[in-house]
Amino acid sequence: MRRAGGRGSRPGHGSDRRYRRPVTRLDLLADPVDLCAALVDTPSVSGDEAGLADAVQAALGEQAPHLEVLRSGDAVLARTRLGREHRVLLAGHLDTVPIADNLPSRREGHLLHGCGTSDMKAGVATIAHLAAAVAQPRHDVTFVFYDCEEVEAERNGLGRIERDHRDWLVADLAILGEPTNAGVEAGCQGTLRAEITTRGHRAHSARSWLGDNAIHAATPVLQRLAAYTARDVDIDGCVYREGLQAVRIAGGVAGNVVPDECVVTVNFRFAPDRDAAAAERHVREVFDGFDLALTDLSPGALPGLTAPAAAEFVAATGAAPSAKYGWTDVSRFAALGIPALNYGPGDPNLAHTREEHVDTRQITEAVDVLRRFLS
Amino acid sequence: MRRAGGRGSRPGHGSDRRYRRPVTRLDLLADPVDLCAALVDTPSVSGDEAGLADAVQAALGEQAPHLEVLRSGDAVLARTRLGREHRVLLAGHLDTVPIADNLPSRREGHLLHGCGTSDMKAGVATIAHLAAAVAQPRHDVTFVFYDCEEVEAERNGLGRIERDHRDWLVADLAILGEPTNAGVEAGCQGTLRAEITTRGHRAHSARSWLGDNAIHAATPVLQRLAAYTARDVDIDGCVYREGLQAVRIAGGVAGNVVPDECVVTVNFRFAPDRDAAAAERHVREVFDGFDLALTDLSPGALPGLTAPAAAEFVAATGAAPSAKYGWTDVSRFAALGIPALNYGPGDPNLAHTREEHVDTRQITEAVDVLRRFLS
Repeated sequence: MRRAGGRGSRPGHGSDRRYRRPVTRLDLLADPVDLCAALVDTPSVSGDEAGLADAVQAALGEQAPHLEVLRSGDAVLARTRLGREHRVLLAGHLDTVPIADNLPSRREGHLLHGCGTSDMKAGVATIAHLAAAVAQPRHDVTFVFYDCEEVEAERNGLGRIERDHRDWLVADLAILGEPTNAGVEAGCQGTLRAEITTRGHRAHSARSWLGDNAIHAATPVLQRLAAYTARDVDIDGCVYREGLQAVRIAGGVAGNVVPDECVVTVNFRFAPDRDAAAAERHVREVFDGFDLALTDLSPGALPGLTAPAAAEFVAATGAAPSAKYGWTDVSRFAALGIPALNYGPGDPNLAHTREEHVDTRQITEAVDVLRRFLS
Repeated sequence: MRRAGGRGSRPGHGSDRRYRRPVTRLDLLADPVDLCAALVDTPSVSGDEAGLADAVQAALGEQAPHLEVLRSGDAVLARTRLGREHRVLLAGHLDTVPIADNLPSRREGHLLHGCGTSDMKAGVATIAHLAAAVAQPRHDVTFVFYDCEEVEAERNGLGRIERDHRDWLVADLAILGEPTNAGVEAGCQGTLRAEITTRGHRAHSARSWLGDNAIHAATPVLQRLAAYTARDVDIDGCVYREGLQAVRIAGGVAGNVVPDECVVTVNFRFAPDRDAAAAERHVREVFDGFDLALTDLSPGALPGLTAPAAAEFVAATGAAPSAKYGWTDVSRFAALGIPALNYGPGDPNLAHTREEHVDTRQITEAVDVLRRFLS
């Protein structure tokens, strides 16, 4: 699940490769819960996934000899070539948000605590285990372990793979192992960010009548936000709840100056019945009359559950699908015309929190469901 | 005229004394316009006034042997002890706001450009010239050249002098050479700063209904500011215009997080008919129901023009006094029970601007008026 877009979200640059530690050995065929703990204890903050990518690549080479393996930057891809009628793609990102005093991992009954447990090393463990464990799957399978999902869209490893190895992304269904509490979350909402700038005229605050206060001028922007009523949209039985929120406000020059600029940054999360252009049009209407600059726009994805392979997988889970709220790379596959859904262990509400953890029973359940689907 | 109060206004720490350049020679008896240029070309940003204080101290010692001189930190004081009935105190601060690509000084017809020309080296030149030129004044005179007026109140050199050398501040009238376009500006407005904090509850912006947006919650704060009607108050024929302005707003955690805190910093400039407590009470009333924390409060000063020495000086200028809007150290003298007013060359509206300059004819005029008053 992607972290903040926009500025300032570039933690680390992966420049320490000269000092890389020896490759961690991962046992893909062990209990996937143990595998998850081993993945969590190999830190891989966005930009610093090289060590973990090395470990995954080495483990696949050694423990899954039936797979063709490809390295792309700090992503590792693997696939069967069994000539099956359908191909399923299972994908998970290797990177995490910055560590928040929550490593190494720690077990407490059924819970495994630590950075990345939920988002999404539990999903990566599930997928990596199946890569080694199911040597003769019913469908051909492509496994994608990629880098830089938690940062700006232009750094996303899946985007690089799409540019450099487009043939590796061909599939009839893509399943992203993002945290969904081991239920199918279909499609995803789109996300738009914009800066609304109000302007005024500087003056010394002791002679404020000579100025024009840009912060005061932002009042109607906040009024419109506070009064905004968000839609709930039902698509294929999945309800998407939209939201329009100020995520930042900044204005001010000095303690004695009437400020001449104030910027309100808003984030619009929109249901996939709006495309990118419609989402932009809507936000511009809401803030009609104001100077609005778009800073980030990622389209959503329709649920796509009517595709046969998707319907088959939903049936294998034995539960009703629901809407995905967070933006995920599902929309990237949707844009490539590949039906895609989110399915993985872990609570999405714990993603990016200091208290991040996963209920290990969900890992076991997800492995069982996917194994059934593939066997 | 004091710069922004509160945080972050500590430019330089005056720690480079080991590397101080040789003492600049100032010619106090030369044309005060040339003296002003020499003062401007000896940079003295708050905290780094040592070089200029050295130069003033050396010049007084050499060119005004009739004065008793005292050094206090980076302030220089001098006084006559002629046993006159009244004592007049002339004060000016040596420091300037940070240089803004506007040094060295530059002349253009009647204008002298550069950092500190208006605020307030033109006033300092006027006072320093008179210190040397009028050896037998009609009133006893105390000259105060002090440091750190442009920064936080607790660093103000006049405050230190008040604590360490209270006897040097005894006077029947204090004239501050702050820029007033060479007219009497009486009293000064008070200034109050407060932070109004709205709180909410964080959530991922994709599930904004789980959160409570603190920026949206700031809407009524801005509404009250935008709707506020400021008073005009007439005191002794001087009209004080109040103002209540947001000078800063800040909120936001990340581009995908519903923020849980937003802080609006307001600055209230109030007429001297309100004391500090009344000003605070008023601002708390305006923002009733909100969490408000006072960060800065300096009382104003009543015009005090009914005091005999003040009335005599006003008569010497030959013009009607007006209200001072900016906060100045006049209020410090008022608190000591000393009638005080602002009178100096320079346009207060140019203070702290990149385009700062002074009309040199005002320097000549101010020197003439003060010389007449003292001779």
